[in-house]
Amino acid sequence: MTKSQHPALLSLVREFFCSRQIHETTVIVAVSGGADSLCLLSLLHQLSAELALDLHVGHFNHQLRPSAADDAEFVRSFCSQNSIPCRIGNPPSDVSLSGSENESRNLRYEWLQNLAADLSAPWIAVAHTQDDQVETILHHIVRGTGLRGLRGIPSSRKLNSRTTLIRPLLECTRAEIEALLKELGLEYRTDESNRDRDFTRNRIRHELLPLLKESFNPQVSDALLKLGKQADRAQQTFDQLVTPLIEQAVTIESADRIVIDSVQLAGQPMGLMTEVLVSVWRQANWPRRGLTFEHWSQLTEMIKHGAPRSISLPGPVQATRRKKKIELLFDRTSGESASK
Amino acid sequence: MTKSQHPALLSLVREFFCSRQIHETTVIVAVSGGADSLCLLSLLHQLSAELALDLHVGHFNHQLRPSAADDAEFVRSFCSQNSIPCRIGNPPSDVSLSGSENESRNLRYEWLQNLAADLSAPWIAVAHTQDDQVETILHHIVRGTGLRGLRGIPSSRKLNSRTTLIRPLLECTRAEIEALLKELGLEYRTDESNRDRDFTRNRIRHELLPLLKESFNPQVSDALLKLGKQADRAQQTFDQLVTPLIEQAVTIESADRIVIDSVQLAGQPMGLMTEVLVSVWRQANWPRRGLTFEHWSQLTEMIKHGAPRSISLPGPVQATRRKKKIELLFDRTSGESASK
Repeated sequence: MTKSQHPALLSLVREFFCSRQIHETTVIVAVSGGADSLCLLSLLHQLSAELALDLHVGHFNHQLRPSAADDAEFVRSFCSQNSIPCRIGNPPSDVSLSGSENESRNLRYEWLQNLAADLSAPWIAVAHTQDDQVETILHHIVRGTGLRGLRGIPSSRKLNSRTTLIRPLLECTRAEIEALLKELGLEYRTDESNRDRDFTRNRIRHELLPLLKESFNPQVSDALLKLGKQADRAQQTFDQLVTPLIEQAVTIESADRIVIDSVQLAGQPMGLMTEVLVSVWRQANWPRRGLTFEHWSQLTEMIKHGAPRSISLPGPVQATRRKKKIELLFDRTSGESASK
Repeated sequence: MTKSQHPALLSLVREFFCSRQIHETTVIVAVSGGADSLCLLSLLHQLSAELALDLHVGHFNHQLRPSAADDAEFVRSFCSQNSIPCRIGNPPSDVSLSGSENESRNLRYEWLQNLAADLSAPWIAVAHTQDDQVETILHHIVRGTGLRGLRGIPSSRKLNSRTTLIRPLLECTRAEIEALLKELGLEYRTDESNRDRDFTRNRIRHELLPLLKESFNPQVSDALLKLGKQADRAQQTFDQLVTPLIEQAVTIESADRIVIDSVQLAGQPMGLMTEVLVSVWRQANWPRRGLTFEHWSQLTEMIKHGAPRSISLPGPVQATRRKKKIELLFDRTSGESASK
């Protein structure tokens, strides 16, 4: 006898909203019509009274495939049967579409954000799953995005000052979702473009992961999720340590001038000083391209030992010691920065 | 025209020894007779006068393959031609060999450590390469050893209080090594067992890595090495932060009783507190099996907020708050710990 997925998934999603105190508010649910987003919509619809959620469905019609209109009609009809308000979006008529997945995603998110603004909705829910998470972590490992990339997809992300993207199904597997839809007798659309839309993503899903599972470790998905969680926790810990250090030691005096109090930083481990410096560059919106581990090492040496007295860094940024302070000057007049 | 590998590899190895101040000392070089170890021996032989190294070759004859005696003879003859002292080791006669790679490695390292003790050699050099490093990192990712495993093979490791294992070729690729041997006209033995000795390792080398390079990222090796370095630096930073915290806050009163001063730890990020706790368990040599992220969270909550007043952890360990201290008691009388 197969165990019902219903209570488990329902309580996972309920827990997601309760732990973040999301209730008595408007939520836009991004629905493609595929299994994942239809499952998300169905679960949220069941929880909407309990959590006092005002649900609105947003479906973006990319108009890239012959079946796109059918998908839109399917979503509209599902919403109408369940009395859920639904908006269908289209690409702006003045945009010539290249059909790239990146462009599609940008257009979709832009439209969803506008819809959220229109409806004063603070939340946009999307249906990424644990399978998406595993594929993303593996993609990042293979592509080489470093430790930050290992964290994978976040369960929530601020899109702008008023709107936050949330992913309530990130702990659910695709198999659980499909089993639930079967259980509920709900039809869904199969995204034909899934097979070729994103070449790398699909080879990861259909070739690499099956190979890893069969030949190396049946539990490779769990191993990747665990690694992602560990990297996330390590990064969170660094961020928590870096924030007060920046407050104590760093003054952003203008867009081009930052002063670091080396006394406040000199006793810290080099790895933490580097995290502080990377964070300073990010906050100042200075280019980090061309900055290698060696450059950060030179700068941390300067903070620790006061020597050398001055160094030139890519950007271009000039770092100069002035008594116990390090002055960082970003030279916008240089051709190097202009060509950035 | 192919560029000569000779100066590059020679200066990499020289730099390895100089940066660690290894000179005027005895070094045992573990030589199987394969390309990597023969290259290491050749380079060290060239540098031995300059660095005042007293080289001794150690070859362990596993006696598992028909060609094993030929390998031993090849190494002995190479050493004799180059006037390098050489010792050939054999498995103890009272050990019945299963032939597993793990067992072979243990026997080899045990014999090498005994040889080092015999010759009062503080260093044992082995010939692991950058390719071994990439394969190890990938193996750890797939097998699931977490962030610590991402660091891969260390460039040096203390084997006991007197002997340290070093890996001077860890920054060299196998292709560079083979090119150098060709350049020098040096013959080497091909390890026939390489193909089947370690099934997983060989599938990683001959199937997984080629697939990743061809289908996903030609630079996947660099991506994995970079990830390994980042994980190593993050872990080093954590270790540097944890050491003083343990000194301030933790008292190991006996093998079964540890007291934590929660005032010293309460203000730290949760991730750092967890690192401290894991480190305490390791130092006390208490079993960590069965301890999950949830258990560490309960304990950090107790340190932060003084509640709950008492918790039971696997091991079994009882944690109890006593005013501003947390007392950890390891119950050795329990059946659970005895069956560990």
